[in-house]
Amino acid sequence: MKKAQSPHIVIIGGGFGGLHAAQNLRRSHARITLIDRRNFHLFQPLLYQVATGGLSPANIAAPLRDILKKHTHTSVLMGEVENINAHLKAVTLKDGSAVSYDYLVVATGVTHNYFGHDEWAHYAPGLKTIEDATEIRRRVLTAFEAAERESDPEKQRDLLRFVVVGGGPTGVELAGALGEIAHQTLKGNFRNCNPSTAEIILIQAGERILEQYPAPLSVKATQALNSLGVTVREKTQVIDIKPDGISLRYGDNVTHLKTTCVLWAAGVRASPLAAILARETGVGLDRAGRVQVNSDLTIPGFDSIYVVGDLAALMQDGKPLPGVAQTAIQEGRYVARHITRRMQGLPPEAPFRYKDLGSMATIGRSLAIAYVGGFKFSGFIAWLMWLFVHIMYLVEFTNRVLVFIQWGWNYFTRNRSARLITGEMN
Amino acid sequence: MKKAQSPHIVIIGGGFGGLHAAQNLRRSHARITLIDRRNFHLFQPLLYQVATGGLSPANIAAPLRDILKKHTHTSVLMGEVENINAHLKAVTLKDGSAVSYDYLVVATGVTHNYFGHDEWAHYAPGLKTIEDATEIRRRVLTAFEAAERESDPEKQRDLLRFVVVGGGPTGVELAGALGEIAHQTLKGNFRNCNPSTAEIILIQAGERILEQYPAPLSVKATQALNSLGVTVREKTQVIDIKPDGISLRYGDNVTHLKTTCVLWAAGVRASPLAAILARETGVGLDRAGRVQVNSDLTIPGFDSIYVVGDLAALMQDGKPLPGVAQTAIQEGRYVARHITRRMQGLPPEAPFRYKDLGSMATIGRSLAIAYVGGFKFSGFIAWLMWLFVHIMYLVEFTNRVLVFIQWGWNYFTRNRSARLITGEMN
Repeated sequence: MKKAQSPHIVIIGGGFGGLHAAQNLRRSHARITLIDRRNFHLFQPLLYQVATGGLSPANIAAPLRDILKKHTHTSVLMGEVENINAHLKAVTLKDGSAVSYDYLVVATGVTHNYFGHDEWAHYAPGLKTIEDATEIRRRVLTAFEAAERESDPEKQRDLLRFVVVGGGPTGVELAGALGEIAHQTLKGNFRNCNPSTAEIILIQAGERILEQYPAPLSVKATQALNSLGVTVREKTQVIDIKPDGISLRYGDNVTHLKTTCVLWAAGVRASPLAAILARETGVGLDRAGRVQVNSDLTIPGFDSIYVVGDLAALMQDGKPLPGVAQTAIQEGRYVARHITRRMQGLPPEAPFRYKDLGSMATIGRSLAIAYVGGFKFSGFIAWLMWLFVHIMYLVEFTNRVLVFIQWGWNYFTRNRSARLITGEMN
Repeated sequence: MKKAQSPHIVIIGGGFGGLHAAQNLRRSHARITLIDRRNFHLFQPLLYQVATGGLSPANIAAPLRDILKKHTHTSVLMGEVENINAHLKAVTLKDGSAVSYDYLVVATGVTHNYFGHDEWAHYAPGLKTIEDATEIRRRVLTAFEAAERESDPEKQRDLLRFVVVGGGPTGVELAGALGEIAHQTLKGNFRNCNPSTAEIILIQAGERILEQYPAPLSVKATQALNSLGVTVREKTQVIDIKPDGISLRYGDNVTHLKTTCVLWAAGVRASPLAAILARETGVGLDRAGRVQVNSDLTIPGFDSIYVVGDLAALMQDGKPLPGVAQTAIQEGRYVARHITRRMQGLPPEAPFRYKDLGSMATIGRSLAIAYVGGFKFSGFIAWLMWLFVHIMYLVEFTNRVLVFIQWGWNYFTRNRSARLITGEMN
């Protein structure tokens, strides 16, 4: 690629971190190339709504080219990065082409972590992509359909048993939504099975769900889940997952649950580019494989490479930064400012500091918890806060309007109209 | 299955014909079972909008259980019918279970017809299912992405060549939507290729496109397509389709077009149940394999079996009934009345007569043609009529509202926000 006079900034990944870096570099005079495997930005915090039929994929995704169409110095390249050569300052794509850079921002995030049991992935899908979400939707709805056809009451009970592994926000939101589906959405839909007899079990290895929140909010969340018919099992480890069930350990007790529908929300692992960066630059990785960056988000010894979002491991006040959208957004903005100042020859930005704007998780209709500025909220108020923040952070105006209407509708009718079983035909 | 006292009506297929039969049988005292392979009713006339990123799948689909949830005598069974035993009056499903019936309504519609060249299906997908639509969307958008990455101008031109085979309403609507995408939607989205240089070619074997309409409307439609950059080639036959191109014959001339994106809208063939009915009952099939029914939509010699919708072949005033939603809806309603009267011991309904409510096709924003009650409409007025009818016939109120807003948005911004490349990752 011919090198023009203005510096070339390459951003890998169009999630929160990469997209906000690109958007905030607009007023710099650099050429920018945003590379992503997908042609859209995905609003991951609402992916569980797609998995549970509340929203359509396009409601929470927006084409990257569209978002950046007025950024005339920015190109979007759909492609998969195969290698990063930190010494030659070039990125190689799977199709063999190479893109050289002056500054590189790596923001490829994380994927599921089965902690050495990748064979479980097939029986217990995780939730990171649109395809994951429609696959989970398919499995959940297919279980109810199979239960309707089943005449043996015991087999029917097994078909209506759903297990969610992982008591973080995603697991809690998935379990809550399953509770709503069973008790509210599907009411009156079946003749031969009763969806509200479904058992929904949320498995948490730690002491309590939502461990990153103050303990009283975990209690509130557990109560809210119980009110939706979800059983929470703390201090419980998964020891095996098979096509027809899951084995669990609680203290010295091992139990086996029959189920055809296990959903995985238990852990994350860095995207493969972290290992490539480690090999190329010698940078350290944390236990989940994330890149241990400097306090200005560059890689030690390679100040032209920045890592932002979930892929970066950074400690602040003795604690790791949370793997949430806000961290990625703030890091993306910081890196944009950092690069702009360097290009202008200005003194460097102060080290990155994450500003905690609060965190929130929703369990169901009018049920949420929020922890903002040291204040704890739960119930309807927290749910309204959650609603407002999530609608406002959606990238496109049209999506905000459509999600608002869809949710208003879902709220009053307790319906979820995107309950389509698509994909693989049985 | 134990036979209760009230008669059991089994309906196979939850499209327009089957669904309207089920809905209009509500006030009969019969037990009704609606069997479908999918868990949703699909509003096929708008499928091309999903294929071209204008709407989301869930906008044009509604769960069958939801639509029928207040019909307490009606069960929905998700399953695939393998056989119909007309003598034993029973339907067998793929999972081995059998469902006996007193009356059977077969409404499984049609699928693509490659006229003996099924090997073309892989290179030229048709448009009948949600999966077809998202696959077409993927191919179209992937072609633009590949063109953006291509530096050779000739290869870029080939990547931006789209061929639609079939000049009926579906082909015209697809070609028009592709024209809009290339000239309006993608404006400003690319840096290295110009989407408005895309060639869109509509292939029609017959003398003119939209042959079922009066000739002046075909002319109007051709003009509207031309204004969107679509070239219409009449009297042209497809002789071969390969991964990298299509061969065409016009009179004695054979031409080869390089393209990676061929879409098939050229013909239909009856679903496999037609052949099963023919084998079981000896009923005749027409050239497309559709069932030649009596004038009351029963099968000769088997008055407990009705066939409705696209699967039925019926002549009226010397002409075959059109394979459109209205035909299926009217036939479904007729069969519901017919069965209800028979169960009540009333004299039979008069033979079925199709009432032509008019037909319409849309080419693009403010461009449509309509033929209603012998009057021809085109342009903005026809487009408004098309809009009104299509929104009103959507099954769920929420879908009507969402589609209305989405279209309003698309109209003013010329955007299509559901432009997601999903499914298979390359």
